[in-house]
Amino acid sequence: MVYLTRKCEFSASHYYHNPEFSAEENQRIFGKCANLNGHGHNYTLEVTVKGAIDPKTGFVVDLKELKEILNREVIDALDHRHLNKEVPEFSQQIPTTENLAIAIWNRLQGKLHVAKLHRVRVYELPDLFVDFYGEA
Amino acid sequence: MVYLTRKCEFSASHYYHNPEFSAEENQRIFGKCANLNGHGHNYTLEVTVKGAIDPKTGFVVDLKELKEILNREVIDALDHRHLNKEVPEFSQQIPTTENLAIAIWNRLQGKLHVAKLHRVRVYELPDLFVDFYGEA
Amino acid sequence: MVYLTRKCEFSASHYYHNPEFSAEENQRIFGKCANLNGHGHNYTLEVTVKGAIDPKTGFVVDLKELKEILNREVIDALDHRHLNKEVPEFSQQIPTTENLAIAIWNRLQGKLHVAKLHRVRVYELPDLFVDFYGEA
Amino acid sequence: MVYLTRKCEFSASHYYHNPEFSAEENQRIFGKCANLNGHGHNYTLEVTVKGAIDPKTGFVVDLKELKEILNREVIDALDHRHLNKEVPEFSQQIPTTENLAIAIWNRLQGKLHVAKLHRVRVYELPDLFVDFYGEA
Amino acid sequence: MVYLTRKCEFSASHYYHNPEFSAEENQRIFGKCANLNGHGHNYTLEVTVKGAIDPKTGFVVDLKELKEILNREVIDALDHRHLNKEVPEFSQQIPTTENLAIAIWNRLQGKLHVAKLHRVRVYELPDLFVDFYGEA
Amino acid sequence: MVYLTRKCEFSASHYYHNPEFSAEENQRIFGKCANLNGHGHNYTLEVTVKGAIDPKTGFVVDLKELKEILNREVIDALDHRHLNKEVPEFSQQIPTTENLAIAIWNRLQGKLHVAKLHRVRVYELPDLFVDFYGEA
Repeated sequence: MVYLTRKCEFSASHYYHNPEFSAEENQRIFGKCANLNGHGHNYTLEVTVKGAIDPKTGFVVDLKELKEILNREVIDALDHRHLNKEVPEFSQQIPTTENLAIAIWNRLQGKLHVAKLHRVRVYELPDLFVDFYGEA
Repeated sequence: MVYLTRKCEFSASHYYHNPEFSAEENQRIFGKCANLNGHGHNYTLEVTVKGAIDPKTGFVVDLKELKEILNREVIDALDHRHLNKEVPEFSQQIPTTENLAIAIWNRLQGKLHVAKLHRVRVYELPDLFVDFYGEA
Repeated sequence: MVYLTRKCEFSASHYYHNPEFSAEENQRIFGKCANLNGHGHNYTLEVTVKGAIDPKTGFVVDLKELKEILNREVIDALDHRHLNKEVPEFSQQIPTTENLAIAIWNRLQGKLHVAKLHRVRVYELPDLFVDFYGEA
Repeated sequence: MVYLTRKCEFSASHYYHNPEFSAEENQRIFGKCANLNGHGHNYTLEVTVKGAIDPKTGFVVDLKELKEILNREVIDALDHRHLNKEVPEFSQQIPTTENLAIAIWNRLQGKLHVAKLHRVRVYELPDLFVDFYGEA
Repeated sequence: MVYLTRKCEFSASHYYHNPEFSAEENQRIFGKCANLNGHGHNYTLEVTVKGAIDPKTGFVVDLKELKEILNREVIDALDHRHLNKEVPEFSQQIPTTENLAIAIWNRLQGKLHVAKLHRVRVYELPDLFVDFYGEA
Repeated sequence: MVYLTRKCEFSASHYYHNPEFSAEENQRIFGKCANLNGHGHNYTLEVTVKGAIDPKTGFVVDLKELKEILNREVIDALDHRHLNKEVPEFSQQIPTTENLAIAIWNRLQGKLHVAKLHRVRVYELPDLFVDFYGEA
């Protein structure tokens, strides 16, 4: 049983706003992130899969297949996008790093044929990241 | 004569669009950056100043003053902002990394009392950066 | 259940010395770290908290509150300090990275109102770090 | 109970080839890695040990001893080597990052006197790494 | 006049050997690098171009074109290759980082249509790099 | 003509204090750095040499010799030291990053046999560094 992690990056825009909050609450709770013009980040995504090594290849997962899945399910949908305006998960949900990690997990879950999804880590900034392991 | 460099970071949103180009030209030239919903980056700014060392302090520049100038002239104006919509330099100019480096130089130039501005470096991505030395 | 990690940095001085050891033992066991003049490091601290996401904010923890707690409980006490001389935990204990991780855990434990402290990671050098999960 | 991690680096050469596969299969499955002239990497190794802190030293492990073990068991055997041609584990096995992590675990297992081996992490590239915890 | 730098990476194998030296000299001068089985590195290449900004695009160089040139002239020729055995420049010359930086400069020189090549930087290791500016 | 840069690290302690200043001035000018108990840093040193490539070796400088010089002249004198108390240059001079870069230049100048010293860069923090080129 080994764990393999692949990193990739995407650049996106977002803002934090809860329509149930007053303007003052949005400002107090979300600070500079409440600016409705949006701001953005270079997100770094680390996807970890686990499984047994195929003795014929030495691989726990086919890296080309993993890359295709990541590109199709995540990067194409999020890169150079406005998360609030263009990504369905965030039409009703605030695109925090926490919610983004879960959204990416849900996009990847069930797509791998061999190894099993173990962890999704999302860095919003070099000094801020969130991990999700699929735990309820 | 020594050169001192301070790094700082800001997060902003932007898109690339030239109204003189057709929609097809904007798409062909700017690719994913042409998305008018905007996308964003964690920009890293390196500001280099040069000068002689003050023998009483051992400093070429007062770091607290340098930080105040950077915050007042650059970070407050750019961080968590949409460059196209909120930063005057980009109302008529495309906010590429090249133009951003020059805009930051112009904001800082003449604000330091002791040392001299030497270089502005802006990273848009970890693998893409622009340097400007004030050369015409 | 998500895990959120915040990094921060502090610079401190320390030395390694056990008064129960002879001078030779201190030198043999602690090497260059035994120099009583002290030496120092840029420590990097990663604090991981875990919890459920508040659906109203999308946050597992209020980042402003987390930052205030980190500053008040850890950074103000350790940054630009001599660990042996100024930090109470190390008046009777050697300020190794191991003991420092536990001291930081103890300073943070019970201070968070919502999420739960999960891990304290301390880097003494870029290639040396210690993790503590509160395990006895 | 604390976990201490030490990083080190080595540079090595390898290629991926399974003699039971046809030339076409080797090319299709291993792509550019199938080039029998070999290519190489700067590998980064992170070794994590866990244990109780010795109250006399504040150490979970003697770092000098850990370094000697890493050098003797791993670095001397792998650094500036061709993994396929010079490292016995890979005479019959493909030197993927997965197999390399297990080989390093097996070289280190049982060599530490105090702390216990917890994890071996091997980076083949900055954006690709494998973890092994000794799990069957 | 601005300077734009793009980073990219390639993995390659090499060894150091001068056939005019005795075996003892090769070993003494080149140390572990003299191993004829070869070893390898993840090389990081930084290419800096300089020029004026096109006011219509805000670009000093078309990044897509720059990437195509880098891939065609450098990455396709060096990535996952054995420098001594597969790259013509090194059939008669030792593939040190110094010679590699010059070889890459010569491959790129004259290929850009707008901006001018300013500097080639090659990292062989994170703590060792060479710069070449085309100076005789 | 190529430029080769080698990085290395050392950990040291220091404080900032000018005996000609009042206690209030020292506190106002140097802030937390004025704490006479000292604090410390992991310094990163980059030394750049320039010269012609020796066609027999492909080297601009013998890396083993460069490392020996760096260790003897710089690392042995500064690593795990208290700069104010143990390094002669700072008995009368404040050990700022600026003065440290010049001190290291002076220690290295004239020690290389082949290549020429071009630049000394000292990082006190990941986001603060000083360059010295030997310019008066």
